[in-house]
Amino acid sequence: MSEEAVRGRRARGGGGAARRAERTAVHFETARYITRNIPDFELLNDEALEIIEANAETVLEEIGVNFVENPAALARWREAGAEVRGERVHIPRGLARKLCATAPSQFTQHARNPARSVEIGGRNLVLAPVYGPPFVRDAERGRRYATIEDFRNFVKLGYMSKWLHHSGGTVCEPTDIPVNKRHLDMLLAHMTLSDKPFMGSVTEPVRAADSVEMAKVLFGADFVDANTVMTSLININSPLTFDSTMMGALEVYAAANQAAIISPFIVGGAMAPVTVAGTLTQVLAEVLAGVAYSQLVRPGAPVIFGAFVTSIDMNSGAPTFGTPEAAHITYGAGQLARRLGLPYRSGGAFCGSKLPDAQAGYESANSLNMALLAGVNFMLHACGWLEGGLVSSYEKFVMDADQLGTLHHLAQGIQIDTNGQAMDAIREVGPGGHYLGCAHTQANFKTAFWRSEMLDYKPFETWDEEGARDTQTLAGRRVAKMLGDYQAPALDPAVNDALNDYVARKKASEPDAFL
Amino acid sequence: MSEEAVRGRRARGGGGAARRAERTAVHFETARYITRNIPDFELLNDEALEIIEANAETVLEEIGVNFVENPAALARWREAGAEVRGERVHIPRGLARKLCATAPSQFTQHARNPARSVEIGGRNLVLAPVYGPPFVRDAERGRRYATIEDFRNFVKLGYMSKWLHHSGGTVCEPTDIPVNKRHLDMLLAHMTLSDKPFMGSVTEPVRAADSVEMAKVLFGADFVDANTVMTSLININSPLTFDSTMMGALEVYAAANQAAIISPFIVGGAMAPVTVAGTLTQVLAEVLAGVAYSQLVRPGAPVIFGAFVTSIDMNSGAPTFGTPEAAHITYGAGQLARRLGLPYRSGGAFCGSKLPDAQAGYESANSLNMALLAGVNFMLHACGWLEGGLVSSYEKFVMDADQLGTLHHLAQGIQIDTNGQAMDAIREVGPGGHYLGCAHTQANFKTAFWRSEMLDYKPFETWDEEGARDTQTLAGRRVAKMLGDYQAPALDPAVNDALNDYVARKKASEPDAFL
Repeated sequence: MSEEAVRGRRARGGGGAARRAERTAVHFETARYITRNIPDFELLNDEALEIIEANAETVLEEIGVNFVENPAALARWREAGAEVRGERVHIPRGLARKLCATAPSQFTQHARNPARSVEIGGRNLVLAPVYGPPFVRDAERGRRYATIEDFRNFVKLGYMSKWLHHSGGTVCEPTDIPVNKRHLDMLLAHMTLSDKPFMGSVTEPVRAADSVEMAKVLFGADFVDANTVMTSLININSPLTFDSTMMGALEVYAAANQAAIISPFIVGGAMAPVTVAGTLTQVLAEVLAGVAYSQLVRPGAPVIFGAFVTSIDMNSGAPTFGTPEAAHITYGAGQLARRLGLPYRSGGAFCGSKLPDAQAGYESANSLNMALLAGVNFMLHACGWLEGGLVSSYEKFVMDADQLGTLHHLAQGIQIDTNGQAMDAIREVGPGGHYLGCAHTQANFKTAFWRSEMLDYKPFETWDEEGARDTQTLAGRRVAKMLGDYQAPALDPAVNDALNDYVARKKASEPDAFL
Repeated sequence: MSEEAVRGRRARGGGGAARRAERTAVHFETARYITRNIPDFELLNDEALEIIEANAETVLEEIGVNFVENPAALARWREAGAEVRGERVHIPRGLARKLCATAPSQFTQHARNPARSVEIGGRNLVLAPVYGPPFVRDAERGRRYATIEDFRNFVKLGYMSKWLHHSGGTVCEPTDIPVNKRHLDMLLAHMTLSDKPFMGSVTEPVRAADSVEMAKVLFGADFVDANTVMTSLININSPLTFDSTMMGALEVYAAANQAAIISPFIVGGAMAPVTVAGTLTQVLAEVLAGVAYSQLVRPGAPVIFGAFVTSIDMNSGAPTFGTPEAAHITYGAGQLARRLGLPYRSGGAFCGSKLPDAQAGYESANSLNMALLAGVNFMLHACGWLEGGLVSSYEKFVMDADQLGTLHHLAQGIQIDTNGQAMDAIREVGPGGHYLGCAHTQANFKTAFWRSEMLDYKPFETWDEEGARDTQTLAGRRVAKMLGDYQAPALDPAVNDALNDYVARKKASEPDAFL
């Protein structure tokens, strides 16, 4: 591997082919990750937060957490001072929090295009697309199992989406590729079709190792040893259970100094108590244990406080999205993350709707707004999520991605300097006048207001003549246009070849598996 | 009038007909107005707020405001210590704010059903439907001019909407009734088809006077003299202009101790500066002048700090909704209103979309969420708004009205007592278990999660078999069901007759006018 990596790095530095690729590439605009200039919404007071924190310590000490089929993890915990009974780890009060202290409060995830590297933590918000759906949908072809062609299309759309900072991970599940090989094609797509930062595989520790190796081909081995170039999603089996697959992947990434989101996966009322304070307690206990474990593997490894939380419809048992209870938990978990000094992952353009219709719009906007104000630092599922996460929607991808522009502008806060105060404009226009032509408006109108690039702002008559199109129809046209305009970002052909070689070699080395 | 009023009051107290009407009526559940148990979102810091307040005083003193064709207003201002030049009123620094101090920070608006009276101000939020559209739309019949039949339908839907506290005012413009008479039919509908609080007419001072007279028939003259039974919408002609029609209506209401919303009507970049701080300055100056004027008419008259603000699409000139700039202004104006000690009106289910589609969902949810966190006390347009306010949408009315439930639950905040903490549940379930059957879940599941009454939560297969309906289609069915189920709230037949008499008499007293 290191040979290829060195070759890749060298070629990127100076090859004529690389320079030629660079010159001919079409560039798409990508906004810088969001840096908030507005406060967070502090839902809970200190007293409530302290109760939840004390209860989480009680959970860790008295109830404990299970590290399943993972003797090495149990040994690490015993060594650190926890009481281990069978697979149950009882963590003395304060120990997990103390271990978490070595995790950085902010870190850089590098992209192969340095202009697209992101800062995760602090006042920043990084937006990444939907993760995990086995199905895709578009208006023309309906709902169907996702393929690698769909996967590549979503990576392309993500690359071209101005307000999206991150290429994500499993933007849909390429079900036409064997289970044990699809991570290779997914990584190859992120690495070659986009130059935004991306996520690694977590479905088996060996696939996490493949992710690290492929990253070394792309970035060079030395660079990956010294820098974080992947952020991957480690789900906790709530309640209070850490399985060996996810922990195995975490161990690979932490050891390689690559970032992991430690994320309880909670449908409230099923995997956590039906009350908000109870859910927050369990979320905090789980994150404390998971982050502490990452620091036992490698102190200083970059990790993120995750919280994927939905409520449940007690009539049908279906998970529900964009609900007030999810908002409460998202706000509260953000406060807990900040008190712990960790970057915070939550939110997304969540909805339960089967179609990119009004329900999808309400639920997604509810979720996006709360995530911004909750202080989220890394937002997975920021676009494309449909049907409770079962479906990646082409149309909703571009609809959500457009709405992400509102978060950028909201986060800018209010300009309060002389230009912002606009007293000269008020003097110039006076009672009964209008501002359209005044000097201040002329000087500011281009940047004053956020403008959607896909919603309908036309006069009724024009809109009607043009076919009275709804949002889904407009979005479908935008998808087609974007995929038609797509051009891959420049990549050194030698690196491209090395990546393809790695994938081909790995695929040839074992038989296909479909389960 | 007083004769009828006394008769109405007496009959409501004890008439057999009234009791019979009461017994046979179907009751629809209405939620109590929202009382926030969550903080407000404080976007601006004190320094920025002080700059805006100082600038607003400069605007009032140096630039001044116009009170057009209203010699009595100019006399009142002169008397109060302002400098009047022509129709321009220059208000010395601090005077307007001082005059505002007699306005109550909270007041009760009584409904004829006392259980539906609302508290406006403080930590409360009262939700009222869309106001003003000349068109209506439904999926079946499309977009068309509104009629009195539509008007009555919307009043009925409002009466039956659980999360809506207020019947509103011009829920659509009944264009089939002469301009000079339609206020009578609108008031009659609110008074007889609903028992929620309502708004009075503002289109001419004599129509405001009719509103007060009809309220006296409904509530009894003594009751109306002593209590607030209407809240009406007084728009300011931004920038900085107070026309005689609106001021005439304000004078009628303030003199009768009836409430008025003093509301700048601003499309940013046209009627106010293109920057947020500049717009907030103008809004504050306009509200200070308008509220101060109401207190010159009658110290202590109940008024609301209003802010209707949208941004503009600089490409097409169309107003835009659910935008970040509107959110900034809504948050900031809330802070200014609280510092002034006045109830605050803003927000709504705003959208520019022509259809109740995803755009409508995103934009409306953006607006509704910000209004809750901005501390709004009275939200007009909380449901039914479509196409920039040109259209009252049947489907969107019930879609929005359903979403208003999320605001109720969000505002409850987080229960942090022993039941909320749920430690017994976490102990009972333990690592790897699930919460669906545990005692705590059983005890709490009915109230734990907000549940939509109209969105789709079904499994994909069921949804697909049932016709793969989108939100608009589900909403259309809900509209039909509600209008089919509608039954008028009980009303003393004598009062009903007196109201109809008043309308008939007034209509006969002058010729129809259509402009």
